[in-house]
Amino acid sequence: MKKTVTETLHDGVQLSFAVEEVLHEEATGHQRLQLIRNRRFGKVLLLDGAVQVTSADEFMYHEMMAHVPLMAHGDPADVLIIGGGDCGLAEEVLKHRRVKSLTQVEIDASVVDFARQHFGEFNAPVFDDPRFSVEIGDGSAFARETDRRFDVVLVDSTDPAGPGAVLFTREFYGNLKRILKPGGIAVTQNSVPFLQKNEFVAGFGALASVFPVARPYVVAVPTYFGGFMTLGWASDSEQALQVDQKTLEERAAGMETRYYTPALHQAAFVLPRYIADLAEKARKGV
Amino acid sequence: MKKTVTETLHDGVQLSFAVEEVLHEEATGHQRLQLIRNRRFGKVLLLDGAVQVTSADEFMYHEMMAHVPLMAHGDPADVLIIGGGDCGLAEEVLKHRRVKSLTQVEIDASVVDFARQHFGEFNAPVFDDPRFSVEIGDGSAFARETDRRFDVVLVDSTDPAGPGAVLFTREFYGNLKRILKPGGIAVTQNSVPFLQKNEFVAGFGALASVFPVARPYVVAVPTYFGGFMTLGWASDSEQALQVDQKTLEERAAGMETRYYTPALHQAAFVLPRYIADLAEKARKGV
Repeated sequence: MKKTVTETLHDGVQLSFAVEEVLHEEATGHQRLQLIRNRRFGKVLLLDGAVQVTSADEFMYHEMMAHVPLMAHGDPADVLIIGGGDCGLAEEVLKHRRVKSLTQVEIDASVVDFARQHFGEFNAPVFDDPRFSVEIGDGSAFARETDRRFDVVLVDSTDPAGPGAVLFTREFYGNLKRILKPGGIAVTQNSVPFLQKNEFVAGFGALASVFPVARPYVVAVPTYFGGFMTLGWASDSEQALQVDQKTLEERAAGMETRYYTPALHQAAFVLPRYIADLAEKARKGV
Repeated sequence: MKKTVTETLHDGVQLSFAVEEVLHEEATGHQRLQLIRNRRFGKVLLLDGAVQVTSADEFMYHEMMAHVPLMAHGDPADVLIIGGGDCGLAEEVLKHRRVKSLTQVEIDASVVDFARQHFGEFNAPVFDDPRFSVEIGDGSAFARETDRRFDVVLVDSTDPAGPGAVLFTREFYGNLKRILKPGGIAVTQNSVPFLQKNEFVAGFGALASVFPVARPYVVAVPTYFGGFMTLGWASDSEQALQVDQKTLEERAAGMETRYYTPALHQAAFVLPRYIADLAEKARKGV
């Protein structure tokens, strides 16, 4: 390969993308931001050397983070996204007509501006949608302080290092619980267990210590290298986990997806044994 | 990173492993073979620049390729592996007490010797098992010529390039069908659809054109980078696909696994929509 950018997230194993074109490079004050074009992944956004989103595979993670809780919830009128700067998650949320308001709290204004400018192919519909509003600020402070209550909260954070680390703590999850309505659902980015064993156990353990119902579910995303990544489902109730396939199919009718299906919704909670074992360890606080 | 080895399988995106130690490097006549030690993946074997197996994650692919057909089949007495040089797949097959004979046909004798020498942590039990025999030879010629018949045939090949390419053709799959007993099951390595779209469509299309029952199922393996890899299930009958969970649980009782579970067995056939769409395309020969 000629010029490449290399992800520096993991120690000992790295993913490199051939650079067709450097579209932007800057230090935002919060994070180091690089945007390149790659022939397989399209536009690739890195923050502090970790891939955040690519135009070719963003749909996998965003669909599974949005549609699983939103299809499962009976009436997801008020939705909150913490993080989610590239606005690909917001796009999936706004496909749900039952959503009446979507608030996104993102710490880094420049990431949102950036994504609007460069990832229009997936996030353009978001900015014209009157249900959508962005607040620039610290998501953990928002969760601590807001008086609002939400049906679904999605935590689309960076990895548990740097500015995103606070979004994997017990204190933060306690605040998520506070701002959910009864029967509400929170879903968090819960890392790649094979490569981030400690992060998975710490993050899921914290989630499970705060919420009476906590379950990891899986999605296989090319750019989040390392086998399955997990999302952490948390709620005060089992109810939304028990919604049957027929109901999911009725709710999903007419929605175009490229990864999510109602059958996959249910299959995603079936874990490989090594992840189930780690989740068990996390629950016991080992 | 200091010294690294870089996988050259995909154009435009590459995985690199930091090298703690070079354990071996040679041109075997068939293939270029490199074995290194990496701090996350343990021993990493590359053939012609493509990662074949690592001691840390071999169990994922090997368990799903072996246990899904072997648990589903009512009486898998005679099993054939084509390829499978590292013998990690053989180890999983031989965990099944119902297996009476396992024949492995591998083109490259040096790979088997190598694996025996270097991957004893997972393949040691294989070489002392009287049910196991290795034939060094061309798997496609074996499938064309043998008079033997098998209950389960597993095609653990390299990618569809170089010496492995013939193992993805219609002619080869026709011979697999020929050597299966009635109700028998073949499972083939069916590539990573996100990064190997053409290979997936061609390979699965060929399989589906030969067998009345052909279904991809998925496994997420860190070193086979690119989201889900697929395995291609093929048979003359639907029967083994319909085995219920209780039966799978009875058959799996007492077997130690790290990835496979009876619930995951069934969930693995539930495809993300982008893979289901490609499989549909493959069936239509588009």
